[in-house]
Amino acid sequence: MICLFYFEPAKGISVKEAVGRVASESSNGTWTSLSTLKEHIRKIRARAFEIKGNYVKIAYPIELFEFGNVPQLMSSVAGNIFGMKAIKNLKLLDIMFPKAYIKSFDGPGFGVHGVRKFMKIKDRPLTCTVPKPKVGMTTVEHAKVGMDAWLGGVDFLKDDENLSDQKFNRFYKRAELCFKVRDMVEKKTGERKSYFINVTAETKEMLKRAKFVADLNGEYVMIDFLTAGFAGFQSLRDFCHDNKIAIHVHRAMHAAFDRNPKHGVSMLVLAKLVRLIGGDNMHIGTAVGKLVGSREDVMLYRDSISNSKISGGKENLYQDWQGLKDTIPVSSGGLHPGLVPNIIGLLGNDCVLQLGGGIHGHPNGTISGAMAFRQALDATLKGIDLGDYAVEHKELRDALRMWGYSRPV
Amino acid sequence: MICLFYFEPAKGISVKEAVGRVASESSNGTWTSLSTLKEHIRKIRARAFEIKGNYVKIAYPIELFEFGNVPQLMSSVAGNIFGMKAIKNLKLLDIMFPKAYIKSFDGPGFGVHGVRKFMKIKDRPLTCTVPKPKVGMTTVEHAKVGMDAWLGGVDFLKDDENLSDQKFNRFYKRAELCFKVRDMVEKKTGERKSYFINVTAETKEMLKRAKFVADLNGEYVMIDFLTAGFAGFQSLRDFCHDNKIAIHVHRAMHAAFDRNPKHGVSMLVLAKLVRLIGGDNMHIGTAVGKLVGSREDVMLYRDSISNSKISGGKENLYQDWQGLKDTIPVSSGGLHPGLVPNIIGLLGNDCVLQLGGGIHGHPNGTISGAMAFRQALDATLKGIDLGDYAVEHKELRDALRMWGYSRPV
Repeated sequence: MICLFYFEPAKGISVKEAVGRVASESSNGTWTSLSTLKEHIRKIRARAFEIKGNYVKIAYPIELFEFGNVPQLMSSVAGNIFGMKAIKNLKLLDIMFPKAYIKSFDGPGFGVHGVRKFMKIKDRPLTCTVPKPKVGMTTVEHAKVGMDAWLGGVDFLKDDENLSDQKFNRFYKRAELCFKVRDMVEKKTGERKSYFINVTAETKEMLKRAKFVADLNGEYVMIDFLTAGFAGFQSLRDFCHDNKIAIHVHRAMHAAFDRNPKHGVSMLVLAKLVRLIGGDNMHIGTAVGKLVGSREDVMLYRDSISNSKISGGKENLYQDWQGLKDTIPVSSGGLHPGLVPNIIGLLGNDCVLQLGGGIHGHPNGTISGAMAFRQALDATLKGIDLGDYAVEHKELRDALRMWGYSRPV
Repeated sequence: MICLFYFEPAKGISVKEAVGRVASESSNGTWTSLSTLKEHIRKIRARAFEIKGNYVKIAYPIELFEFGNVPQLMSSVAGNIFGMKAIKNLKLLDIMFPKAYIKSFDGPGFGVHGVRKFMKIKDRPLTCTVPKPKVGMTTVEHAKVGMDAWLGGVDFLKDDENLSDQKFNRFYKRAELCFKVRDMVEKKTGERKSYFINVTAETKEMLKRAKFVADLNGEYVMIDFLTAGFAGFQSLRDFCHDNKIAIHVHRAMHAAFDRNPKHGVSMLVLAKLVRLIGGDNMHIGTAVGKLVGSREDVMLYRDSISNSKISGGKENLYQDWQGLKDTIPVSSGGLHPGLVPNIIGLLGNDCVLQLGGGIHGHPNGTISGAMAFRQALDATLKGIDLGDYAVEHKELRDALRMWGYSRPV
């Protein structure tokens, strides 16, 4: 296992001492010499092997890790080290997973080909919406918004990250009603429709909710993987493996880890862990909406979860995914129809585009918003400028008038 | 529910707009106006009600939250907001849990009184050691270190945060052997001994390990609560409730969240969540060892997990724990016998002192190291200077000679 860190030693600490302390604290060192340190233990120490400016690569013998246990991995390479006085700043930028370690995980159950197959959608980007406001609607109001969005042409309904099982919109009632509406819309439109319903909770309750979804013929569950945590996410993946269900992964709380460029854990590491464990969809930002994340960053996350191999760079490592399926990138956060050409230019067709306010904020409501979204998508795939396409498409015209649009960069 | 944030608006964003965005994104707002926003939804919006410099308090209607679901809480008040462009820096400093919310959790099963009772230790600080090196010893070597430490006078053996179930030291073998040794030492010394064995893994496997410990008459399990995550931690707490087992909580990875004073989630919030869910022990740092954390910080964490009520300050909120049991503070990280008076001066007697290298690095090995630790404790409780006490106590003398000592400040 190889980790790439950005590091800054504390005042008075040499570069060599700083990286030595990171390597030892994240494997089997401590702060004093030990009578108990024998040769077979010394052999599985982690070692820094390349220092370039503030970047260091550390190699960890595979024996240090329990296979199939992400919490144990993170307790090792992303544990105590962030709190050491010898270090001023430390960021885990990437982890290169070796073959044997990858083989101890399932990876995604479907990947983009699997999802396209059960959704019967050949080539175009997949479309998604989350009812807004985020929380507060009753179950009936929620299902009505879902129905309108599905009818308007959206493929996936999605819960917001902070909607789970509140008084105003109970989980089991929501699941029942929304899947009933889903079945009805599928009949009416002849299109496949699905729902990323948020099952995030204490693990046993989460699995109970996932079971309920499976029994209602849901194809997907959604989890906030960082606030639920890796132990719960792995358990949900196991359940979904046995029940042939896909997982939509929301990254709420990621920016508490990854926003500081000098300290914490990178979004790249988080995204790779999602693919390793087996998320089928993963939010990676937009580069253009309300959330932070540069174009280059978003492209790197996309490549790392979509491609079979990635070559290394200054802030990432080479990775061969050993045949593991891909995770579909989800672009969301402040998107509207006028941004669709931009996002497709950036991510290509193998992605989920998720619009929330950019659908429900449409002057004529959700159905028109969903139609405008699909019109923007159609125009982009046909290579027609949105402005031109809007002349004959009223819903798109109203959306562009409200939020504007920009040509692909 | 009240949250206290430190915030810095992004360039060109006013203070009012910044805090408004934080409040709305963490409850039910979005970036555009919505046709779907009705009065009953508007009623449960979060509102900023006090801004003092860079500190803001936000009040969240309790309806926004699912009771008994910490992942959902964190997805709300510690979710997307850290990644908003409108904010340059944002740190969640404290959460004031209201009575109804607290009542939906168990809290600690034992607290200091419960643990003292089953350990038959009346007043003195509890003592603990983790075998070092952190990982790499065989199961037999590990158990031998445990035996020596227990025989030398230590109460608790503890696994390191990155030891779970590796090839060189399998979990089930380790549990069996260590509890056998434990039973033997208890007979020999007439003292109660226990073991914080690390069960951190995917949830179902974690509960299987906890069950195995319960069947071996273990009183405790240990979890890395941040790398396992809140869903798994809550599940483990449920299991421990049903099986009358205490939980030792390690905070590996906390400094990825809390080290930056301007961004992320504070250690105070993490510590309070541990008490809410029900950790019986919790690592809070030393203020004097190898890890960061000031004296004032460590005292605040201690008070917040030990006391029944806390008064508010600049960086924390008032909290009434509504009768919830306490969590025992654990001090660890670079400690040795010479630091014992200092730590007791800081934390008092109701704590667990954990020495790793400061025991096993003793020139005469682990038994002598453990004896030196207990001698330092005895001296401190009797009010005798360590230097004076060392005259008649060779093990302590060797320890002080090796690592020095400092008088309480």
